[in-house]
Amino acid sequence: MEPFWMQHAADSAVVISGWHRMSYRYADYTTMSIELEKYIRKMHSIVGNAVTEGRYLVFGIGSTQLLNAAVYALSSENSSTPSNVLASIPFYSVYKSQTMFFNSENFQFEGDTNSWQSNNSTNNMDVVEFVTSPNNPDGELKTSVLRGKTIYDHAYFWPHFTPISGPSDHDLMIFTLSKLTGHAGTRFGWAVIKDKDVYEKVLNYISVADLGISKDTQLRVLKLLKVAVEGDGKPIFEFAYNKMRDRWERLTSVFAESTRFSIQQRHPLHCNFFNETRLPSPAYAWVKCEREEEIDCGAVLEAGNIKGRSGSNFSAKDRYVRLSLIKSQDDFELLLQRLTELVSLEKSGVETL
Amino acid sequence: MEPFWMQHAADSAVVISGWHRMSYRYADYTTMSIELEKYIRKMHSIVGNAVTEGRYLVFGIGSTQLLNAAVYALSSENSSTPSNVLASIPFYSVYKSQTMFFNSENFQFEGDTNSWQSNNSTNNMDVVEFVTSPNNPDGELKTSVLRGKTIYDHAYFWPHFTPISGPSDHDLMIFTLSKLTGHAGTRFGWAVIKDKDVYEKVLNYISVADLGISKDTQLRVLKLLKVAVEGDGKPIFEFAYNKMRDRWERLTSVFAESTRFSIQQRHPLHCNFFNETRLPSPAYAWVKCEREEEIDCGAVLEAGNIKGRSGSNFSAKDRYVRLSLIKSQDDFELLLQRLTELVSLEKSGVETL
Repeated sequence: MEPFWMQHAADSAVVISGWHRMSYRYADYTTMSIELEKYIRKMHSIVGNAVTEGRYLVFGIGSTQLLNAAVYALSSENSSTPSNVLASIPFYSVYKSQTMFFNSENFQFEGDTNSWQSNNSTNNMDVVEFVTSPNNPDGELKTSVLRGKTIYDHAYFWPHFTPISGPSDHDLMIFTLSKLTGHAGTRFGWAVIKDKDVYEKVLNYISVADLGISKDTQLRVLKLLKVAVEGDGKPIFEFAYNKMRDRWERLTSVFAESTRFSIQQRHPLHCNFFNETRLPSPAYAWVKCEREEEIDCGAVLEAGNIKGRSGSNFSAKDRYVRLSLIKSQDDFELLLQRLTELVSLEKSGVETL
Repeated sequence: MEPFWMQHAADSAVVISGWHRMSYRYADYTTMSIELEKYIRKMHSIVGNAVTEGRYLVFGIGSTQLLNAAVYALSSENSSTPSNVLASIPFYSVYKSQTMFFNSENFQFEGDTNSWQSNNSTNNMDVVEFVTSPNNPDGELKTSVLRGKTIYDHAYFWPHFTPISGPSDHDLMIFTLSKLTGHAGTRFGWAVIKDKDVYEKVLNYISVADLGISKDTQLRVLKLLKVAVEGDGKPIFEFAYNKMRDRWERLTSVFAESTRFSIQQRHPLHCNFFNETRLPSPAYAWVKCEREEEIDCGAVLEAGNIKGRSGSNFSAKDRYVRLSLIKSQDDFELLLQRLTELVSLEKSGVETL
């Protein structure tokens, strides 16, 4: 996304004076900018990816902090047994590492939803389920397996990654600036929450953990979103979608030549935002090594100088590897070149490893 | 501190371009700016308030986040019994609320060090003790009571609040921008850590909790510290000290007229930074209601339209109230005027409540 922001240099730069917002709170005694909240709601309304009317918003340090805040908010405090936190394999590793790290008496990480379902009676519904849609690593649009309490991680639910077939309307949804405008380093995310009690618990978490979000960051995010909503979001999402589509087309044609490696299937869907039927263009390729003996796909790719994240990072088999497609153009070109070389070895019969 | 930053408007403003630091990491693959780290070390070296040579630095979201990160880092992970977290009454309420909120199996909040010492054998030394020096709320320079593991909260250990008699040299020390430059809203703090293993644990906490500190915030802090170290820190600390001294002189003369209320005693100390013997000028006045029947001092002051934090917020008696002296000049003038009125009622015999 860097090139987009370079093209919009004048509008997107922000000047912060030395005496800007020195206090913990804004004049209205909140820690969250009302103006910024307005622009976030506007963005969702333009894109049509989430219902925000009558919902509460909470800002966090990236979506990362909000994931844990949500787990605390949805776990039972008074129960003698901890709540069960689950996700569906393959899943983003932070759900597990974070839940285990905090080691709270309120909850415990119980792993995969499907295994859990087959081992537990449906009466035990004290569950908090992460539903990542589109999924990290494989881009799948997911729904809840256990139908208990859910945390919808919608980090990638934007039109450059997936067709938007309608607004998401779940109890607790988490978004992040990182996957919307590309500003991961800014560490800014938000939760959209239906229930007032849950909202207050998430807000309390942010307050107890670090007394709110940097005012400088909020000012910068506001400036970026003001640019992003221009032209009803068409310029930024067309820029980002075209880039992703181009990468997927080139990637697909490389893997089409291979019997050794495969990538996930993509299925067309109607996108209300772009008003046409399109293929998704996920942030990551989920590569599978098809040969029975190649159970460590990460090592196979590594031998071709290609770095990815092994399946076990996502509690899946190491026969899978996640390759990031949201990197600089130079890095993507390098990735594609090395993949092409690796695949071409299949024909020549000369293979690494 | 706002007036100081208004006087230094040109130097302290920062411009952040739309494409600035979009990535999670800097070019050297760290999440912390090396340049900023350099300026923090320089600031400590100028002021002489902390040994930083050969120590590790970790940035956090204010000191708030680092308090909890430190508790996690110092608690025993493998022990079947949780570590005991303690502080000395009166203490900053966040130590208790945060430790209890996270409700980890690794630690539990055990309250006051002195009570604990008299109820436990000295063999049970799995303790993590918060030592707040100068103390919030009363400004006392404190040392460890239990002599086990310690977290030195040095938020107020700067020459405008207390004479600096020498550099602090403890295993884990926490500082915050908020009480140094006045930028609470920026949410930036740092820990100075002796032991590599503890350093890595604190760093890991920040990474698991929120994948690092906003790059925009780091850029702004760098800009502010560059101004703060100018003239070897003399301009900023003289500005801040003069303001605090003035407030304490006026406050002291009001309380000198009262037998109903008293404030903490202050004792002169030699300050190496200013190279003279001075009285401390703490961030807060710790007010005591002296009349036996006035056990709710907060209510007594409230009746005089004076807002403070009751002693029970600091696990002390409600006969005490903390009044903040680090507010805007207008708010301070209002506080002083109302205190003067309240004290004048003692002579006239007409008293509220």
